Amino acid sequence: MKPLTSRLLVCLVASALPAFVALAADVPAMQGFTAASATTEAAVEARFDARLSAKEMKAWLERMSSAPNQIGSPHDKANAEFMLEQFRAWGWDADIETFYVLYPTPKHELLELVAPHHFRASLTEPPIAGDRSSQHPVGALPPYNVYGADGDVTAEVVYVNYGMPADYKALERRGVSVKGKIAIARYGSGWRGLKPKLAYEHGAVGCLIYSDPADDGYAAADTYPAGAGRPAQSLQRGSVADMPIYSGDPLTPGVGATKDAPRLKREDAKTILKIPVLPISYADARPFLEALGGLRAPTKFRGGLPMTYHLGPGPAKAHLVIESDWSLRPVYDVIAKLKGSEFPDEWVIRGNHHDGWVFGADDPLSGNVAMMGEMKALGALAAEGWKPRRTIIYASWDGEEAGLLGSTEWAETHAEELAKHAVAYLNSDSNSSGFLYAGGSHSLQRLVAEVAAGVKDPAGTATVLAKTRAQSIVDGLGGGGGEDGRRVAEELLAGGELPLDPLGSGSDFTPFLQHLGVASLNLGFGDSEPGGVYHSIYDTFDHYIKVQDPELAFGVTLAETAGHTILRLAGADLLPFRQQEFATSVSRYVEEVDALAVHMRAQTAENDKLIEQRIFELGAERGDPVGPPPHEAPVPFLNLAPLRNAAAALATSARALDERYAAAIASPSALSHERLAAINADLRRAEQALLSSNGLPGRGWYRHMVYAPGLYTGYGAKTLPSVREAIEERHWGEVADDVASTAAALDAYRAVLDAAVAKLN
Amino acid sequence: MKPLTSRLLVCLVASALPAFVALAADVPAMQGFTAASATTEAAVEARFDARLSAKEMKAWLERMSSAPNQIGSPHDKANAEFMLEQFRAWGWDADIETFYVLYPTPKHELLELVAPHHFRASLTEPPIAGDRSSQHPVGALPPYNVYGADGDVTAEVVYVNYGMPADYKALERRGVSVKGKIAIARYGSGWRGLKPKLAYEHGAVGCLIYSDPADDGYAAADTYPAGAGRPAQSLQRGSVADMPIYSGDPLTPGVGATKDAPRLKREDAKTILKIPVLPISYADARPFLEALGGLRAPTKFRGGLPMTYHLGPGPAKAHLVIESDWSLRPVYDVIAKLKGSEFPDEWVIRGNHHDGWVFGADDPLSGNVAMMGEMKALGALAAEGWKPRRTIIYASWDGEEAGLLGSTEWAETHAEELAKHAVAYLNSDSNSSGFLYAGGSHSLQRLVAEVAAGVKDPAGTATVLAKTRAQSIVDGLGGGGGEDGRRVAEELLAGGELPLDPLGSGSDFTPFLQHLGVASLNLGFGDSEPGGVYHSIYDTFDHYIKVQDPELAFGVTLAETAGHTILRLAGADLLPFRQQEFATSVSRYVEEVDALAVHMRAQTAENDKLIEQRIFELGAERGDPVGPPPHEAPVPFLNLAPLRNAAAALATSARALDERYAAAIASPSALSHERLAAINADLRRAEQALLSSNGLPGRGWYRHMVYAPGLYTGYGAKTLPSVREAIEERHWGEVADDVASTAAALDAYRAVLDAAVAKLN
Repeated sequence: MKPLTSRLLVCLVASALPAFVALAADVPAMQGFTAASATTEAAVEARFDARLSAKEMKAWLERMSSAPNQIGSPHDKANAEFMLEQFRAWGWDADIETFYVLYPTPKHELLELVAPHHFRASLTEPPIAGDRSSQHPVGALPPYNVYGADGDVTAEVVYVNYGMPADYKALERRGVSVKGKIAIARYGSGWRGLKPKLAYEHGAVGCLIYSDPADDGYAAADTYPAGAGRPAQSLQRGSVADMPIYSGDPLTPGVGATKDAPRLKREDAKTILKIPVLPISYADARPFLEALGGLRAPTKFRGGLPMTYHLGPGPAKAHLVIESDWSLRPVYDVIAKLKGSEFPDEWVIRGNHHDGWVFGADDPLSGNVAMMGEMKALGALAAEGWKPRRTIIYASWDGEEAGLLGSTEWAETHAEELAKHAVAYLNSDSNSSGFLYAGGSHSLQRLVAEVAAGVKDPAGTATVLAKTRAQSIVDGLGGGGGEDGRRVAEELLAGGELPLDPLGSGSDFTPFLQHLGVASLNLGFGDSEPGGVYHSIYDTFDHYIKVQDPELAFGVTLAETAGHTILRLAGADLLPFRQQEFATSVSRYVEEVDALAVHMRAQTAENDKLIEQRIFELGAERGDPVGPPPHEAPVPFLNLAPLRNAAAALATSARALDERYAAAIASPSALSHERLAAINADLRRAEQALLSSNGLPGRGWYRHMVYAPGLYTGYGAKTLPSVREAIEERHWGEVADDVASTAAALDAYRAVLDAAVAKLN
Repeated sequence: MKPLTSRLLVCLVASALPAFVALAADVPAMQGFTAASATTEAAVEARFDARLSAKEMKAWLERMSSAPNQIGSPHDKANAEFMLEQFRAWGWDADIETFYVLYPTPKHELLELVAPHHFRASLTEPPIAGDRSSQHPVGALPPYNVYGADGDVTAEVVYVNYGMPADYKALERRGVSVKGKIAIARYGSGWRGLKPKLAYEHGAVGCLIYSDPADDGYAAADTYPAGAGRPAQSLQRGSVADMPIYSGDPLTPGVGATKDAPRLKREDAKTILKIPVLPISYADARPFLEALGGLRAPTKFRGGLPMTYHLGPGPAKAHLVIESDWSLRPVYDVIAKLKGSEFPDEWVIRGNHHDGWVFGADDPLSGNVAMMGEMKALGALAAEGWKPRRTIIYASWDGEEAGLLGSTEWAETHAEELAKHAVAYLNSDSNSSGFLYAGGSHSLQRLVAEVAAGVKDPAGTATVLAKTRAQSIVDGLGGGGGEDGRRVAEELLAGGELPLDPLGSGSDFTPFLQHLGVASLNLGFGDSEPGGVYHSIYDTFDHYIKVQDPELAFGVTLAETAGHTILRLAGADLLPFRQQEFATSVSRYVEEVDALAVHMRAQTAENDKLIEQRIFELGAERGDPVGPPPHEAPVPFLNLAPLRNAAAALATSARALDERYAAAIASPSALSHERLAAINADLRRAEQALLSSNGLPGRGWYRHMVYAPGLYTGYGAKTLPSVREAIEERHWGEVADDVASTAAALDAYRAVLDAAVAKLN
């Protein structure tokens, strides 16, 4: 499902460390490798690269995207079986692991405008000339948002812009409510699942989500087939499960959805929405929007349709009917292993999903075929006698689109083994032309930067690192990412390391990182071209080779980048973690939450002054009469000292560990197999120390105290999530507990580092 | 023609001075009035207000906007004669003063797309149901931009966004040139006349200017007749004379265009453009834009049409023909006087123009009828025995739309008298519902704030001051006006005085303020509703009473605000100037130009680093491949010390004068007629000290060294213009001279203040 977040990389080590870039020209710097091992590793990587074939990837892409492949479709199963056969042929110990998940599919859908005149929404995406797949969508499901409720509702319509919290505040200040209404929201700005959830929380009885041309249609780019923009009748399917509560099968939170697993009753599943919701095209949305009266929509609500947007409610009235088949369906995870020669109990895991919404050429198969390329190359190396020092596990997940089903159920099923054995999880999803985006655990930031410095861009003239660094600078100085984007750009220009994004959610890393505490990465390539066919019937092979990556050149680049990362994780002497980047990131997050409270305190005080002076009433414009915001209690001063102390201690320990680690690598004779195993055990269990047994407030499945998807951002990351969200939601009484539990997690992490330091002394 | 600048008020006295607001409840604070005079004045103002009639204003508006009234039209002359008759009937000493100006009008116009297919632009604005005037546009001229060149050109088209300097930089970085092409620009962002001027300077052979719906059409508001937005076939006429060089008749710069005045040859007139230019509707523009190929337009270039904007050049090719009648035409200024009883040689001047582009109900007649209301009320007071202490001159100008013709020719004709007698000039132009916007000489800031504190908003519940203050706060805190807007809002919230905007150009104050050094004000009411019928055939009485000010309530509010200002200027003991607001503004402008140089220095250095590291090439996106900016020489360190010294000395003298002034007002017995006359002579000649005999570099007609329209902003003000523009244009060698001449002007002003101080001691 690929998070539609910007590629902006928002974390960064503060100290300037350009050394490894300079080194790269001679012997590549490799975190965790002795000089001798590094030489061997470089040779293995070169052999690996030589085995990658863009042509093969393209052929796999064409085959696997040749028919609809959503959960339960024949082609989804066929793809799993095809891969199984290939993986075995390539020398992997492979199997299909099957889970049984609740997967509702539409039996009946109806959307009509019933007042002030009649219009029936087509709810179809017609064939496009020149796109072969769209001519033959046999087996495709009707467009829908999986895990919305069934229902038959008729109500006036209200336009809620992106349907995010700020939009509801803007509506309230204009006296507009969705209570008893059907909310129509446009895609974008936050995760789709939040739109019907927030509509429901504000009293709506139904929700429509449409793709406005301002966001990914003609305003952003020429529309397909001319370009990458979304055509008028295209729409975005997608899950609306309440994934910030837990991912995976709604009926089996925390346990694998095996055949005999205990299951919740459907009405007890917290992640299933309570109101019906439907994704529609702007061609279908326009008659509803045009029939809205009421206030003119404020500037930020204006989309790209050639009309004046109004808020309603009414006179537009909609009739929405959804009736689903709520059966269980199988999902097929294809799991393949290469056993480690020296440390078989240390598992390096790599995954990409294989299920799509319809044909899924971009999302997810472009990433999946790159991963297959890595597997074939690794298999070939193994056939020639090379063995990974650690066990490598590749997984092609099923059911990601509905809510990370395949990965979550597998991770939950194997939770105990993973806690013991997992080194790291590396994810990818859709892939395209452009620049590297990389998110993940900051203890792996140095590894990613080193890998990116050793992979050439397809044009061959610059490294992935140089290109991505340049793009981050251009984007950040140009205003992308706001103040944070500028900070990143300036730090990069001053010699700073390419930062990792903190991970929120939106792809299969979530169960590994945030439920199990496995250090994770998410990699891929792309640029700012709009995802105009995202989750539509037009995400096809023809589209992909026309406007995304015609010869799969970036498929190879992704395979090199991910493959080198896996090879280094599997082949390093000391596991390639580095702690100072993590410590620096944590310190910055602590400063951010402090600054957040300071800002909210000033803002609250300023608002109170404005309310008292009746500034909003006096200054209201005829065209957009905005009332005052609600009065809020003053923001108290918060004791963040435990966090600061924990972050400071962490920084000291991180520096100590990195120094001892570097010294140890420089004296390889002292690194016995047993010593390496013992130290590496600390390095790989460190991330698990960041888990809290209680999990995050109100959503205990999410246990990571540093990285989480936001309750009200969905895909977007919240760092130090319990503290940050307590402040954002003004739960002042909870902040002290959240500070304590987060500081405890940081202290636990620090203690693991100190244990490793002791072993390195 | 009404500057389409935001109402954001960008200057502000730094010291918090809420005292006069508190006083207003008892005896209104009145700058320059002794306690006894203030009591009398308050009574006169109350009688004045009682004489104002919204109903009369509405009747005048309907009558005067009943037929097209551009220069040379029968109804333009009829309006002048109607006013003359009224003014005389109301007791004014009135006459029509006629000038003869070059005023080209179209004989033949053609615009067609000749490739890749044919389309002929309609160049017409059809009648709108329910709008009576638009049904009968007898005597209206074809739409055109006056003072564009005649020509017959055929060339490929290039889309240049707003056609401002930044847009050409963006095009150059994408390898797109307008050389030999026809530029198509959208209205907005800067003054219209700059669009063809810049197109010409970049090599274009013709220019089209269209109204994009994103700026004042359906994206901004429901379109007329439903709301204030511009309909599809509406277009914006307007002057494209190069007015930042000089205003008025192109053939008579610096002298009045009397019958026998010496005239330039047309080809020697610097303000006439060199290429043909035509204003068109988006209905006419769309086929040209849709036929453009080439690169996709970057984000900032995207308008509101339902299409993907491209830059070209071509394949769209346009054929543009304009042929004009270049005759001289008469303009009729209606000038009316009420002689002062005590100081007849001190002239207080008030003006608004009466010519429109077609019917001109909003622009300018809404302001003109408010002014007529003031005149009738003043006439009635005079008939009852009241006499102004100073001479009051009211002027209804003709020919403003073409380039401030009537006001400029009158001011140039009477330059010597004005230098001797003028106290101040108060301008208005179009008026609408909303909040006060006030620009002008900062020595009049306190006067305006005091007047606004004494006028009630039409709703009757708050003063104009309270409403406008609130709106500035809401707008500034909401992001309007950027950092400057927030600063103004915060200063207002902290108790600061309502600031005056510095004046650029765009209405009839320009010849008074910037050519003659008469302290000036520009007042009016409005809000952020789009000027969707601005300069179109739909600026009618029906439109005005439907969407602007149905009962002319704000006509009365403007008449009260402007009338009280005139009454105070004409009735004060000491002229109501206050110097500290001016000194504070000047100090801030000095800091701004310093900050500008600092910013440019850092930006230039950063760009050089980016260029050297090839960041733009490496970071270029597929969808918008932006090359590097040109290398610029480093920004030298500049000696602004003379400006700082002059500003510091000015601040000291201003404080001294204001203190002595206040003391003198508090002891009225010492204020003899002769002493008042002597001190007031200093106060009214102070602004003239800010003139430089050489004028601004390259445009000597503009002589004011503190306020000017920008060479590349047109309407927008540039403060300390010679210094600021030398820095902006990187004319480093000229900065020292500009600093010296500006400091000299400030010193000359200070010397006048010191002379007044001596007389007050």
